[in-house]
Amino acid sequence: MNSELKKYFDLNSRRVEKALRRFLPQPSIRPSIINEALRYSVFAGGKRLRPILVVAGAEVCGGNWKKVLPTACAVELIHTYSLIHDDLPAMDDDDFRRGVPTSHRVFGEDMAILAGDALLTHAFFLIARNAEIQGVNPRSVLKVIQILSENAGIKGMIGGQVADIKSDGGKWKKYCKTQYGSEKELLKFIHENKTAALIKGCLIAGAILSGGTAKKVRALAKFGNYLGLAFQVADDVLDRIGDKKKLGKKGSDFKNAKLTYPLLFGVEGSLKAARKFVEKAHEALGIFGTKAKLLHSLADFVIARDH
Amino acid sequence: MNSELKKYFDLNSRRVEKALRRFLPQPSIRPSIINEALRYSVFAGGKRLRPILVVAGAEVCGGNWKKVLPTACAVELIHTYSLIHDDLPAMDDDDFRRGVPTSHRVFGEDMAILAGDALLTHAFFLIARNAEIQGVNPRSVLKVIQILSENAGIKGMIGGQVADIKSDGGKWKKYCKTQYGSEKELLKFIHENKTAALIKGCLIAGAILSGGTAKKVRALAKFGNYLGLAFQVADDVLDRIGDKKKLGKKGSDFKNAKLTYPLLFGVEGSLKAARKFVEKAHEALGIFGTKAKLLHSLADFVIARDH
Repeated sequence: MNSELKKYFDLNSRRVEKALRRFLPQPSIRPSIINEALRYSVFAGGKRLRPILVVAGAEVCGGNWKKVLPTACAVELIHTYSLIHDDLPAMDDDDFRRGVPTSHRVFGEDMAILAGDALLTHAFFLIARNAEIQGVNPRSVLKVIQILSENAGIKGMIGGQVADIKSDGGKWKKYCKTQYGSEKELLKFIHENKTAALIKGCLIAGAILSGGTAKKVRALAKFGNYLGLAFQVADDVLDRIGDKKKLGKKGSDFKNAKLTYPLLFGVEGSLKAARKFVEKAHEALGIFGTKAKLLHSLADFVIARDH
Repeated sequence: MNSELKKYFDLNSRRVEKALRRFLPQPSIRPSIINEALRYSVFAGGKRLRPILVVAGAEVCGGNWKKVLPTACAVELIHTYSLIHDDLPAMDDDDFRRGVPTSHRVFGEDMAILAGDALLTHAFFLIARNAEIQGVNPRSVLKVIQILSENAGIKGMIGGQVADIKSDGGKWKKYCKTQYGSEKELLKFIHENKTAALIKGCLIAGAILSGGTAKKVRALAKFGNYLGLAFQVADDVLDRIGDKKKLGKKGSDFKNAKLTYPLLFGVEGSLKAARKFVEKAHEALGIFGTKAKLLHSLADFVIARDH
């Protein structure tokens, strides 16, 4: 990560961190165990990539981080809920995430399911509250709620997760023939929906809340999609070859015969694909000129990171 | 159910039924299995009580059913998601609901979790869309999103479910002493949050979308709270003594030593409490005069129903 990007990440993740503590339900609310469960997962050391994308999407359209902060926190809650539910025994059955035991290992499956539900529910409360900030158009907030619910729902993240699960354990060989033309198409569907949709949604949300033009919103959507694809391919490669300790999880994808880029194209082929996605991400930023410097750095970082 | 109330239920549940088919993600969207799972639970024969409360809350404030229809459908999705997750093996572990196998029995635990997540996510999409109806104030829609997310979240339905689970299997004897003063207080907390909060939220949502005054909204909130409490007590009694076939479930609460009204106060004592709640519900409607005729009938029905 170059020093300018690092500074941007540090600054904005601190802002998000502070806001999250304020925006989460107060710890005094009964029953206390569900609050503990929420906070455990939300403050388990995430990179805050998605909130930072909301801020970056706003700023590249001339907006201000203060005016998108509730929505930036909301996308982190949506992301966290998806991780808690993905880790459940009935899903990926992961015991560790970011180096610490997963929610269901600490609080039990029932509390983990409810903690996820609570985070998703609270996310929409926060986005709606974004309209209380002066200068934010309530119609823009309603548009953002629609976009984020679509991108986190069946047409996005959840749809991708369903296809991912249904093609897990080697089942993709059969599954892709029933609803998807080829293995490659199924894999693209999974990545675009499971990962890229929410990332794209974050950038669009920041732009819309800041009054970005339709052209700018479209450019950011394109950028977000390629950024998300590159991010997921890099993640699969890291899962295959990365330092398990840095990653904080077991590298379970390969073991489970999950449909991934490394499985279809090998590590070298995957890295090549990721570089191509990053190239397309850069291209999408053309209309922003030098204003998009930070987003360019971010795209480069996605495939250079080691965790 | 008196004939006028029955007519109102029939008319509005038909409207909701038709709208739900239109408002749910189209069945052509891939992956098809998650759409099947959503539709399976949404069209499993619910009474549509909550959507009808949104309509009734609107109409008693001079509003119109057409202007609250997306929100009316949304609350049914929130209710359905909560049932799917409540029935999971990690929660109540119920195999049947409304006389048919529960979602996880048909689609597997993973799909049931995701179907619940998808319904909750889509609910907020629908509420946001309510602002596209002419004459609906976008700020009112944002207020409704905040209220429904609060009433469905930690401060409402989820909070109640957590306390319910944590006091299950006889554990309430110990649990109520740690965070709640007495068994009765814990039971009240569970009922007010798990059941009454969303019912209250429905009435408030309809009122706010129809421009109801703060005084009217407060009256409906009070009415909704007592209606919800009466509903839950009646449900517990039905679970204890009701015809299993009509109820469509096993009457598992008593077996599991769940903290319920019948367990604390017996069947007679519970019915007495329910009648008192209904009385208070009637009182809350005072300011609406004869306009609230239907809501009065509804309150009476709640404790007279046999399923």
